Amino acid sequence: MTESETATSHAPGSRSRGGRQARQAQRVGRQPPRIIAGIRRQIPTYDLLSEEGLTRIEAAIDEILKEIGIDFRGDPRALELWRDAGADVQGERVRFDPGLVRAIIKRTAPSSFTHHARNPARSVAVGGEHLVFAPAYGSPFVHDLENGRRYGSIEDFRNFVKLAYMSPWLHHSGGTVCEPVDVPVNKRHLDMVYAHIRWSDKPFMGGVTAEDRAEDSIALAKILFGEDFTDKNCVIMGNINANSPLVYDGTMSRALRAYARANQCAVVVPFILGGAMGPVTNAGAIAQSMAEAMVGVALTQLERPGAPAILGNFLSSTSLRSGSPTFGTPEPALGSLVVGQLTRRLGVPLRCSGAFTASKAADAQAMQESAVSMLAALQCGANFILHSAGWLEGGLVMSYEKFAMDADFCGAMHTYLAGLPVDDNALALDAFHEVGPGKHFFGCAHTLRNYETAYWDSDVSDNNSFEQWRDAGEKTHTQRAHEKWRSMLRNYEAPAIDPAVDEALKDFIDRKKAAVGDMWH
Amino acid sequence: MTESETATSHAPGSRSRGGRQARQAQRVGRQPPRIIAGIRRQIPTYDLLSEEGLTRIEAAIDEILKEIGIDFRGDPRALELWRDAGADVQGERVRFDPGLVRAIIKRTAPSSFTHHARNPARSVAVGGEHLVFAPAYGSPFVHDLENGRRYGSIEDFRNFVKLAYMSPWLHHSGGTVCEPVDVPVNKRHLDMVYAHIRWSDKPFMGGVTAEDRAEDSIALAKILFGEDFTDKNCVIMGNINANSPLVYDGTMSRALRAYARANQCAVVVPFILGGAMGPVTNAGAIAQSMAEAMVGVALTQLERPGAPAILGNFLSSTSLRSGSPTFGTPEPALGSLVVGQLTRRLGVPLRCSGAFTASKAADAQAMQESAVSMLAALQCGANFILHSAGWLEGGLVMSYEKFAMDADFCGAMHTYLAGLPVDDNALALDAFHEVGPGKHFFGCAHTLRNYETAYWDSDVSDNNSFEQWRDAGEKTHTQRAHEKWRSMLRNYEAPAIDPAVDEALKDFIDRKKAAVGDMWH
Repeated sequence: MTESETATSHAPGSRSRGGRQARQAQRVGRQPPRIIAGIRRQIPTYDLLSEEGLTRIEAAIDEILKEIGIDFRGDPRALELWRDAGADVQGERVRFDPGLVRAIIKRTAPSSFTHHARNPARSVAVGGEHLVFAPAYGSPFVHDLENGRRYGSIEDFRNFVKLAYMSPWLHHSGGTVCEPVDVPVNKRHLDMVYAHIRWSDKPFMGGVTAEDRAEDSIALAKILFGEDFTDKNCVIMGNINANSPLVYDGTMSRALRAYARANQCAVVVPFILGGAMGPVTNAGAIAQSMAEAMVGVALTQLERPGAPAILGNFLSSTSLRSGSPTFGTPEPALGSLVVGQLTRRLGVPLRCSGAFTASKAADAQAMQESAVSMLAALQCGANFILHSAGWLEGGLVMSYEKFAMDADFCGAMHTYLAGLPVDDNALALDAFHEVGPGKHFFGCAHTLRNYETAYWDSDVSDNNSFEQWRDAGEKTHTQRAHEKWRSMLRNYEAPAIDPAVDEALKDFIDRKKAAVGDMWH
Repeated sequence: MTESETATSHAPGSRSRGGRQARQAQRVGRQPPRIIAGIRRQIPTYDLLSEEGLTRIEAAIDEILKEIGIDFRGDPRALELWRDAGADVQGERVRFDPGLVRAIIKRTAPSSFTHHARNPARSVAVGGEHLVFAPAYGSPFVHDLENGRRYGSIEDFRNFVKLAYMSPWLHHSGGTVCEPVDVPVNKRHLDMVYAHIRWSDKPFMGGVTAEDRAEDSIALAKILFGEDFTDKNCVIMGNINANSPLVYDGTMSRALRAYARANQCAVVVPFILGGAMGPVTNAGAIAQSMAEAMVGVALTQLERPGAPAILGNFLSSTSLRSGSPTFGTPEPALGSLVVGQLTRRLGVPLRCSGAFTASKAADAQAMQESAVSMLAALQCGANFILHSAGWLEGGLVMSYEKFAMDADFCGAMHTYLAGLPVDDNALALDAFHEVGPGKHFFGCAHTLRNYETAYWDSDVSDNNSFEQWRDAGEKTHTQRAHEKWRSMLRNYEAPAIDPAVDEALKDFIDRKKAAVGDMWH
């Protein structure tokens, strides 16, 4: 598999085997982007709560599931599966005895799995110590410094697929990287999945907005990977939102079951803004989110035992002045740490947080909030971080500049995740003996041996002197990010694809598009 | 003491006793700024290294101290103190048997102490679970959006003292908040200490650039607090830099001893840029920093056993492309976590990190880097965080806009430090019973009971809708920060001071200034 590449490429002394040279080569030429297929964390998780706190939240989860329950609306098959599993089904309301949902998950849900890419070197491990960065998802608008804020198009969509392909720090192509609103709603999933397959070779996600769109997405994956391989391996993911509080609507639960039925990964994620779809206090919102997500993950196992699934979390706070959602604030950062602890006790992979912000501009607020929220994602032990790059304006906007800044920050986070090695080389005692008091370390043997791999070196941040920065035009981080993504797109070259596969994909899409009329909402 | 105010004001359900109302009152009128005298952390530390890693670093510290040693240059009294304490002194080189320095510290250095303010309600606890935010320190330049980058003046100095006084989130007035370069070098300390005393009532720091300037600063503190009180209590701090690697020059060690002799707090902090004043690998730089800082703290105890002292840390990485120092990168963030672990084993208060950045503008890079670096400071268990607000351009610039953004971020960090309570109210089970599946929580009893205190609410960030933001002029975070500090200064009113004390302070300063000529470098 893939994690060893990352694990060694970030261990001290091994990046010198090509990491830095490869990055420099990449800056000047059109080499295919460096392959980092996910990353293996070498830092511990940051555990906020004591055993007592966790146990109290787990008891609250049990009470919510037993006494209030969850509605499955418009999906009789889901109710049938729950009835067969021993839940109490009355109308569309399903209630669960304490331990039932947890037992279903623990019995068959995999603790980790491989999410395959069409380029096998880019397949990623999901679960355990592994972590995958994927771009932001679902914005109707896009923004860049030159053209401003506008609805997303299929051209923007392709651009973001290409940018994610070009960034070594994003391991995954994502899903709805922006809404291509110039494509009919009922046909978007076809163009989106095709773009991921054709313009990238990283793993990707499919459509979820209707059961048949999920099935179309999986059908395209089968053309790419083969029927048999797809039945035995995870080659596509679907991102499934609960309709919080405590409801799954049939569209979502049917799409969830379509992915599970095909042995593909459902990412099950409640979307809770405290005070609106959940309580304003963190512990209660966490209990609700876990209850909803656990029931969704358990449903994947009822549909097909052993199907890969990811438990997702998306908690946000609310501005008390305006009622608007807020992002990158302290409360959800703390919440992520607790969700991580609870999810590890369940033993399933976790999707959590992202480069969140409520800012309307790719500015200081945006990166402050995103840093807070991304660090929480890393520290909580998340395995799949959707929304790692591009997110702006509470998810309404996919920003080109924010994308370049966030991707660079994901690069910094690769170094963070590599931890702090303590070995003879790192302790540098030979350097102290060589240099001694009052001298400098510039030319000592230890520095020469280590300097090429010593520190994270950003492609977007400016660390030069004031005079150098002034003479280079006094550019802000945002302006440099603008130049960065433009240069990435300029240097983009599509990865090769088997022409027969490409034909088959296009043929499937053409037939599907011809079979029905266009829907625009 | 003081921590209880903060501890309770951030506990759920208690902020409603006035916190929010007080903040709103403060927005509109000229009430004295809300008093938060330090904060008590209710989150665990984030412990990066295992026992084995810590033990290896401690062994490296011992080896550096024993085999290489530390030079004390131009301070015979320091050498005498070390000789008497059993160290091996040869010329100006001092070598220490393993365990000697640690034993001196553990014997008499206080694990925590009170740093008194002239307003007793603003005195802060230093050590243990307590944390103090203080503004940035030492910049020759200042910057604001209107007037650009320029040398700092005594007027700028006073402005930053007033701004720190106005912010509820900064608990301390700091020291050299910027260099007032329009005042002669040998008289600056007098005007600086006076500004802290007169224009704020928060705790402060004094001069360190010569032994007699340290003594002048302490003399001013004695006029304010009284001779006897000052001899028994910490009323002023001095920030002492080691001359890394492995050197204390006499200016610094004499100033250190002056503070200790007066029973005042020396903050002992090596300043190490990896690759220049220390090795390029984190573990070695940490060992060096700890060795230097431990020796400085031990010297305070040799000068006066029981004197308060803070062990400081200032690690930074270097850009491998330009050789410039970098800030807010992953390596020093991880380093802070380890320094926290090691310092807790020594049992002394820790100064660590700050709102660091290498950015030349108060932009996205600045706040990304500052957020990474401040979160590490909180998570590593730092007790005194100098450079919490205003730091720009690697410390060369004190920025008015960055100050406002950072102070607001310190506010967010108050909420972060309050942790995640798990009690009946926080678990909100009554809300789930009241609301049920598919409904919203806007008007439920639990929301009404909690919404005023539920979430951190920034004064600088914009969480409004795109349309509201656009109609308000499409301001960036930096532009809003500009308005924020202007309004803080406009609303500033000086705290009262006893006119007799004020006269005595001025009289002392006048006499001192008259006694010697001006020095300009």
